[in-house]
Amino acid sequence: MRRAFQDFYAEEFSHCYGCGKSNPDGHQLKSYWDGDDTVARFSPDSRYSGGVPDHVYGGLIASLFDCHGAASAAAFTCRALNREMGSAGEPIRHVTASLKVDFRRPTPMGTELTIKGRLRSMEGRKVWVDLTLFAHGEVCATGEMLAIRFQR
Amino acid sequence: MRRAFQDFYAEEFSHCYGCGKSNPDGHQLKSYWDGDDTVARFSPDSRYSGGVPDHVYGGLIASLFDCHGAASAAAFTCRALNREMGSAGEPIRHVTASLKVDFRRPTPMGTELTIKGRLRSMEGRKVWVDLTLFAHGEVCATGEMLAIRFQR
Repeated sequence: MRRAFQDFYAEEFSHCYGCGKSNPDGHQLKSYWDGDDTVARFSPDSRYSGGVPDHVYGGLIASLFDCHGAASAAAFTCRALNREMGSAGEPIRHVTASLKVDFRRPTPMGTELTIKGRLRSMEGRKVWVDLTLFAHGEVCATGEMLAIRFQR
Repeated sequence: MRRAFQDFYAEEFSHCYGCGKSNPDGHQLKSYWDGDDTVARFSPDSRYSGGVPDHVYGGLIASLFDCHGAASAAAFTCRALNREMGSAGEPIRHVTASLKVDFRRPTPMGTELTIKGRLRSMEGRKVWVDLTLFAHGEVCATGEMLAIRFQR
């Protein structure tokens, strides 16, 4: 079975409500390669409603972008360093410095959402990622993130 | 007892996971006036952990900004129109068009967070709101939002 980027996070970094494999209450978002880009898929439970019941609340969309973007930044960095994710040595992990979300149309509930990530640029420990969320093949939200490689 | 901005939302708009009074599973964030600005306070449950257990996950911070910012936009609009929130007539409600979050330091778990909103500008149906999140009196995140007045 294909392992997600988040499956390689060290146990001490695996508690995120959005994507931690060790958080039983959370979304456990899983991100993967999709050619040169990255992808995650998520079907929100009805509790994550926006103001109007059949749409997703804005905070969830930001959360999906945040977790997929940070995981993608780690994957893009590994690729640039020619390292396998989870290989020996200091773990490669990123934190979000800045996230912008543009809500382009209401995101429907009751269907699988697709979140895509694309590397915009990389400079030292900084990685800029462009993000797009689709439902039924339509763009519902776009985002951009600056993630920074975490160092102890 | 003082009513929060969200308490005036029409029932059909009260299901948001972040701030809907009719969502029993959600955060039920409550926003109030604080002089000319607005304020909300929230103590996250430990399940809303970030990757590292004693810090809040980024998506929650975005969610708090999103819900507090949209509620603040409605309140600022009511004030500009010299209307009471919840007064007769078409409900005044805003949706987020764009939200930017800058994560300035890790946000600690186990303490009350304070989210402040300040009107930057208003133009027709558009409202720009500046947001700040504090823990222990320190700024942990700042944000800016464009909210648009919802019309049927």
